[in-house]
Amino acid sequence: MLPILHLNGYKIANPTLLARISHDELKSLFVGYGYKPFFVEGDDPETMHQAMADTLDEVMKEIHAIQHRARDKGETIRPCWPMIVLRSPKGWTGPKDVDGKKTEDSWRSHQVPFSEMATKKDHIRLLEKWMKSYKPEELFDETGQLIPELAELAPKGERRMGANPHANGGLLLKDLKMPDFQDYAVEVPKPGKVMAEATRVMGAFLRDVMKRNMGNRNFLVFGPDETASNRLGALFEVTNRRWVADTIPEDEHLAVDGRVLEILSEHTCQGWLEGYLLTGRHGLFSCYEAFIHIIDSMFNQHAKWLKVTGSEIPWRRPIASLNYLLTSHVWRQDHNGFSHQDPGFIDHVANKKAEVIRIYLPPDANSLLFVADTCLRSRNLVNVIVAGKQPGLQYLSMDAAIKHCTAGIGIWEWASNDKGGEPDVVMACAGDIPTLETLAAVDLLRKQVPDLKVRVVNVVNLMKLQPQSEHPHGLSDREFDVLFTTDKPIIFAFHGYPWLIHRLTYRRTNHKNLHVRGYKEEGTTTTPFDMVVLNDLDRFHLVADVIDRVPKLGYLAAYAKQTIRDKKIDHKTYIAQYGDDMPDIKNWKWPY
Amino acid sequence: MLPILHLNGYKIANPTLLARISHDELKSLFVGYGYKPFFVEGDDPETMHQAMADTLDEVMKEIHAIQHRARDKGETIRPCWPMIVLRSPKGWTGPKDVDGKKTEDSWRSHQVPFSEMATKKDHIRLLEKWMKSYKPEELFDETGQLIPELAELAPKGERRMGANPHANGGLLLKDLKMPDFQDYAVEVPKPGKVMAEATRVMGAFLRDVMKRNMGNRNFLVFGPDETASNRLGALFEVTNRRWVADTIPEDEHLAVDGRVLEILSEHTCQGWLEGYLLTGRHGLFSCYEAFIHIIDSMFNQHAKWLKVTGSEIPWRRPIASLNYLLTSHVWRQDHNGFSHQDPGFIDHVANKKAEVIRIYLPPDANSLLFVADTCLRSRNLVNVIVAGKQPGLQYLSMDAAIKHCTAGIGIWEWASNDKGGEPDVVMACAGDIPTLETLAAVDLLRKQVPDLKVRVVNVVNLMKLQPQSEHPHGLSDREFDVLFTTDKPIIFAFHGYPWLIHRLTYRRTNHKNLHVRGYKEEGTTTTPFDMVVLNDLDRFHLVADVIDRVPKLGYLAAYAKQTIRDKKIDHKTYIAQYGDDMPDIKNWKWPY
Repeated sequence: MLPILHLNGYKIANPTLLARISHDELKSLFVGYGYKPFFVEGDDPETMHQAMADTLDEVMKEIHAIQHRARDKGETIRPCWPMIVLRSPKGWTGPKDVDGKKTEDSWRSHQVPFSEMATKKDHIRLLEKWMKSYKPEELFDETGQLIPELAELAPKGERRMGANPHANGGLLLKDLKMPDFQDYAVEVPKPGKVMAEATRVMGAFLRDVMKRNMGNRNFLVFGPDETASNRLGALFEVTNRRWVADTIPEDEHLAVDGRVLEILSEHTCQGWLEGYLLTGRHGLFSCYEAFIHIIDSMFNQHAKWLKVTGSEIPWRRPIASLNYLLTSHVWRQDHNGFSHQDPGFIDHVANKKAEVIRIYLPPDANSLLFVADTCLRSRNLVNVIVAGKQPGLQYLSMDAAIKHCTAGIGIWEWASNDKGGEPDVVMACAGDIPTLETLAAVDLLRKQVPDLKVRVVNVVNLMKLQPQSEHPHGLSDREFDVLFTTDKPIIFAFHGYPWLIHRLTYRRTNHKNLHVRGYKEEGTTTTPFDMVVLNDLDRFHLVADVIDRVPKLGYLAAYAKQTIRDKKIDHKTYIAQYGDDMPDIKNWKWPY
Repeated sequence: MLPILHLNGYKIANPTLLARISHDELKSLFVGYGYKPFFVEGDDPETMHQAMADTLDEVMKEIHAIQHRARDKGETIRPCWPMIVLRSPKGWTGPKDVDGKKTEDSWRSHQVPFSEMATKKDHIRLLEKWMKSYKPEELFDETGQLIPELAELAPKGERRMGANPHANGGLLLKDLKMPDFQDYAVEVPKPGKVMAEATRVMGAFLRDVMKRNMGNRNFLVFGPDETASNRLGALFEVTNRRWVADTIPEDEHLAVDGRVLEILSEHTCQGWLEGYLLTGRHGLFSCYEAFIHIIDSMFNQHAKWLKVTGSEIPWRRPIASLNYLLTSHVWRQDHNGFSHQDPGFIDHVANKKAEVIRIYLPPDANSLLFVADTCLRSRNLVNVIVAGKQPGLQYLSMDAAIKHCTAGIGIWEWASNDKGGEPDVVMACAGDIPTLETLAAVDLLRKQVPDLKVRVVNVVNLMKLQPQSEHPHGLSDREFDVLFTTDKPIIFAFHGYPWLIHRLTYRRTNHKNLHVRGYKEEGTTTTPFDMVVLNDLDRFHLVADVIDRVPKLGYLAAYAKQTIRDKKIDHKTYIAQYGDDMPDIKNWKWPY
């Protein structure tokens, strides 16, 4: 890779900054960036061609010397790679002036140096003079063909820029050698009893993906300094963080060939991963959920690229998917706070073409394993996985997780009591914390209103909610109606902003009975349960929502709501005193 | 301003990059950034205190010398401002080791250097030793009070960091002196006949806002090199682009005291504007619509700050609103293309607290003037204005614009024919191009089905669509039902992604009959009309939507839809041949 800064002085309406600082400052800047800059500067085409050729020769010599020291002498210290500053006029060899205004070497030559050909005869003459200055009679024969000596200069076959396999990464893509994700399963003898940290379990799986593909050197994990914090530290059993700057003896897990790329810049992580995928390799970007918005705009361009190349450009071969693991999410803010709370990246993603986007909210470790495996095997997609890193209840055995996640959505029979009859209410949930609160609410309802028929539906693959006509994963209306009924109240506890669920389901028969709870921009640094209380997503609120919406429970409302009110006051008093959640909240497990 | 890079070597789990490059590279980097770096380096507290004090003295002398040259000698060349690199151990003076692992001067001292106090007695002892190392007996008296000699060192009154008025900008805020926006009105004798460029009209208004407040120096306009391209060039009649780097004689509108800040970095524009507002001044950020996503994450933090300080911290005085003008929007891609198409920033904004966000889609120049005036006068909000820069039809006289925009939503009587009766269909629109297509569709319907009763509703203030309970600007359900009926089909032509309208209206009575057209990620570099055709937002498609949804028009469907199909084929053929829209499309005006 040889970076060339083409410093032509201007952008759309202004000089560029780097063109207007001193030579010394400019040189210092690139030295500060770790490069050895070479300058090619001038405006006479002939001289500049020679200067550029000489500089390229010199630079290639430098590169070969570095490669020799590294490859033949085993030198591992970071080299000072060469780069070139090419300073030439903007609009070079275009018209010097148009209508008496400086155009070559000015912002005026940006994009359209002059126009109005139909009305200004001068402009036509100017265009003709300009075009003729390239001496077409020396370049083309009488039939308009490029003369053979020039045509021969063009590279052939894979040396052509557009045919270089590195510019069509799918050609170079090798499948990842995948371990069996079932080998990493958490034992879940009964639902809602065992605790595990979902991303830590995934970490062990990723470690072995890394190990198996070390030989092919085609898998990297990216993150803003959070691989360990996000509980993916098992990776460091088989690889290191890539580090080419100075080291000291106390350093841990830093190496020039490390396959975990950490930098506290989501932009850089995203850019690295995109480049890596586009050149035919595989990767995963793990990020704090709130801060992935930093790369919203970069994601946009990648999703647009996938849309166009995936469906409209047949010679482009599929590349590995862009995989995000969003963790350290909105609902656990024990150490961070309001600034770290934003589950809206999935709203942003859902605006892009359905064919290229997937959003998964696995509720526990085994379902996360299944989803991670699916994402790493997929092609030409953007996969967003949202999963917590904190210890949490486990609901699904591996066998149950495979069935549930393959469907992407389904009734949790063990949590429901409507089998063989009609439910009075559907309690739906998506995301680990909303699932926990939903189940705890179901427990409260079972105790307070044993004859209430509750159906629990869990959603892993969010796109299942959309109509089939809108997304390839969408349920048919018939399937949706069977799950959610056509006329019963649905209380939906959701990980993100509630309106995303409304948006995905507004065409469904029972949308009028859908009531969604989710994050509504209320939060601070507080206990896990207080976060859900602040946003009306807690078990008590969900119970109140059920009582409000199931007609036959009307008689319960007054007393039940007063109990709930008191519970919330207890909670507030307790956390103010102990800085921790009440034991019966914190230690709640599914008691059946 | 004195930048200090506190280079303590580590972040959460890694060394920092700048701590592990050579002194020369680090120095070069800051020289390249235009600074004169001073280094304070070491780990002995006493020596370091002295070194820091000496360096601060030296640096202050430098700053005073620069100020003297500028203020007394009139020197205007860019000075090399000093900055300090303070290199000290992370976790300095904390425990050297914890459990045998290096902690001071290591990433392990990040945030929580050690914990588990309840279970590890060693840790309690370590904590005690550490705390006692600060000699509390010398700092506090027997009652625990700070000793008077130390207490006196703290600054008083406004010199206290938290009481400095520059950290509570509202204290310093002066109202902008506003010209009368009505003076810039476009003459609109009849709706839909006259053409104007909305943002160019706004440019003249901004010019005079700038002029009137020049004395107070409290208004700046920010943009990524697009002020002229976005047609706000009138500003350069009264001010310049701020430019402190080198200049050449041919430069235009560059000056050290320019009040338009242009840099091709949306991040920098956003950061500058936030800082400017927080210190009590006013500003506007104009940006290409698609690229404002670059600052999604920065917007989040500002919106969260406004939510907390606006409603929860009474001593914080209101500051001027953060104003965005999004132009060069999705529907005009004559020169750009798919990469420049994303109207989703308003979806992102709508996720934040209703109290602090406002979204305006003025359909023409006079309505834009009204909205711009409203935004510049407002406090503690984020205002997003979406408005095209291309020549477009004008619908509202200034008088009509004031009435329509004050309400934020309303029936356009002159375009409707249902007065005195019930409408058969409500044609709603928000945004300049959707308004144009809606009116052209109404024209086609009037010609084809003269007895069809059509009501045209235009939305300027998007938040009017939300329920009153969700947004302070929301219409009551009664008001909404009166405008949109409770049972007639609504065809809504929207500027952005269609689901935003569904999300805002899902609780409304007539939501089930709402059908929204908008951007659905289809586009390329093409003609204006082709952009709407590609996204099914064109006049023909809107007519087809009406025919499909108004029961009494069923008989028309077969022939009408065939005509529409033929029209679209004509359009495709024409643009392929001429690269421009058909004259009857391009030159369409409201014919009544």
